[in-house]
Amino acid sequence: MDAMTPPPPPSGLFQGSQHLFPVRVYYEDTDLSGMVYHANYLRWFERARSDMLRLLGIEQRVAAEAGEGIYTVAELSIRYLAPARLDDALTIVSSAADLGAASVRLRQQAVRGDELLADAAVRVGFISPEGRPRRQPASWRAAFETVLIPKVAA
Amino acid sequence: MDAMTPPPPPSGLFQGSQHLFPVRVYYEDTDLSGMVYHANYLRWFERARSDMLRLLGIEQRVAAEAGEGIYTVAELSIRYLAPARLDDALTIVSSAADLGAASVRLRQQAVRGDELLADAAVRVGFISPEGRPRRQPASWRAAFETVLIPKVAA
Amino acid sequence: MDAMTPPPPPSGLFQGSQHLFPVRVYYEDTDLSGMVYHANYLRWFERARSDMLRLLGIEQRVAAEAGEGIYTVAELSIRYLAPARLDDALTIVSSAADLGAASVRLRQQAVRGDELLADAAVRVGFISPEGRPRRQPASWRAAFETVLIPKVAA
Amino acid sequence: MDAMTPPPPPSGLFQGSQHLFPVRVYYEDTDLSGMVYHANYLRWFERARSDMLRLLGIEQRVAAEAGEGIYTVAELSIRYLAPARLDDALTIVSSAADLGAASVRLRQQAVRGDELLADAAVRVGFISPEGRPRRQPASWRAAFETVLIPKVAA
Repeated sequence: MDAMTPPPPPSGLFQGSQHLFPVRVYYEDTDLSGMVYHANYLRWFERARSDMLRLLGIEQRVAAEAGEGIYTVAELSIRYLAPARLDDALTIVSSAADLGAASVRLRQQAVRGDELLADAAVRVGFISPEGRPRRQPASWRAAFETVLIPKVAA
Repeated sequence: MDAMTPPPPPSGLFQGSQHLFPVRVYYEDTDLSGMVYHANYLRWFERARSDMLRLLGIEQRVAAEAGEGIYTVAELSIRYLAPARLDDALTIVSSAADLGAASVRLRQQAVRGDELLADAAVRVGFISPEGRPRRQPASWRAAFETVLIPKVAA
Repeated sequence: MDAMTPPPPPSGLFQGSQHLFPVRVYYEDTDLSGMVYHANYLRWFERARSDMLRLLGIEQRVAAEAGEGIYTVAELSIRYLAPARLDDALTIVSSAADLGAASVRLRQQAVRGDELLADAAVRVGFISPEGRPRRQPASWRAAFETVLIPKVAA
Repeated sequence: MDAMTPPPPPSGLFQGSQHLFPVRVYYEDTDLSGMVYHANYLRWFERARSDMLRLLGIEQRVAAEAGEGIYTVAELSIRYLAPARLDDALTIVSSAADLGAASVRLRQQAVRGDELLADAAVRVGFISPEGRPRRQPASWRAAFETVLIPKVAA
């Protein structure tokens, strides 16, 4: 193992207020239908949210270990439009649409090229280690605000 | 291994038109928060639907291997109300609310005693091996009808 | 949900010093080969070990929350002999073969009827919350001793 | 989604005959101990093997869909030496050590920097869609040979 230069860990990026996160489909993601098992999109969305936080400078593990709190999914709805299959290279496109005191709403999509495979709305809440809703740290809210999709005036 | 009498495989049962399916929380279901990882409820709901089909006499594997088709989740929304933790004994309560030509809508809940932990609405579609919507086999529709929650007249 | 009588949670049993734990194969367990994804046997084995502890009166969650420690897999080897498929009813057969101060060795097998599908040897260590090896609680060792396979004299 | 330039999908690389594959630890990988659940290393190793095949020009999905066959784990042993935690950037280091007619042996390790976390030996067999051992396609063997670790003469 000496002198090896490991490839960089998988990482997404922001393009404007959209966060793009790459995913490849592996055996573990599929089921006997040959298609991706539906629950696994939720794992990908969570990876994308974690990557988003990391890029915004938010350290989830530090906050969890310090007992400050963690984000947890409070509500989620998803439509499955087309199947993904082994070896597919997908992108998870995420955007934060609404920022509350203790929660944030995101739109998350799985796309393959310009084809939309799954489309989700997720509300993530900040909770204490005991599981109670808690105000997000101010610095976290500030970080989210930098990538928030602006609300269109009516 | 000779002469052993294995315990019966986990199985649910119908109580009226409600299907009850038992689940215990294991290490694999939890994450570092100490609570169940949100995507795992979807796995439990799928186990419960498969058990429901089995009790109704529907053989998914036979249908899949014969190329007839499979059920796949088309749409799902879920609210997480309270966390589940290691060793918890839960029940997945499912009921079929609406039966279409190629799909069925279910309500699925995870409960611990009389506490509601997660509440979901799921639309499951029948698809061909190529992934296209297909009419459910008549016998499957008939099976579902026996446990359908009656619609209340307006 | 009122007045429902939920089915009992899945549970194994001891037959002599063998622990038998039932498993059914669901969609989540399979991959596009139509067979069970190899890593999922490890999840089943862990469920069986947790069930074994529960039957022996050992409360993992209490010990974890009290900061006493947890069991963790230190070493594992497994041979895959025949595939399992959707809807299969399997039994996980476990026996404790060797009990040390801080660890225990088990043999774990997945069988379908009298067919052996996977055969594993697992060493499980007791560790502190910080991840260091630690002596098992005396009462836990005593519990394991009641089901230990007797060593054959040379 | 138009005009977005998605980040490249995660990918490994060969360095000599070693294949290096990057992995980041997400919530889904952890359990309530705060450490990575032991079975999840097997998922990472499988991702690395798939990536290795892809880099060698072997198209698993095409072969599976054409009914030629697939690789499946026949045997695996693993030692867990140190825990991985949320947000860790790991490298899966793989090398092919022995190439048979119908199977290949690999060594696979999970490392964090220069720390070895898990060390595994894996035998992967090529099987027909019915699950029987089958000779690997000649072109696949040839591809593996290019990265095989040379055997040291005694």
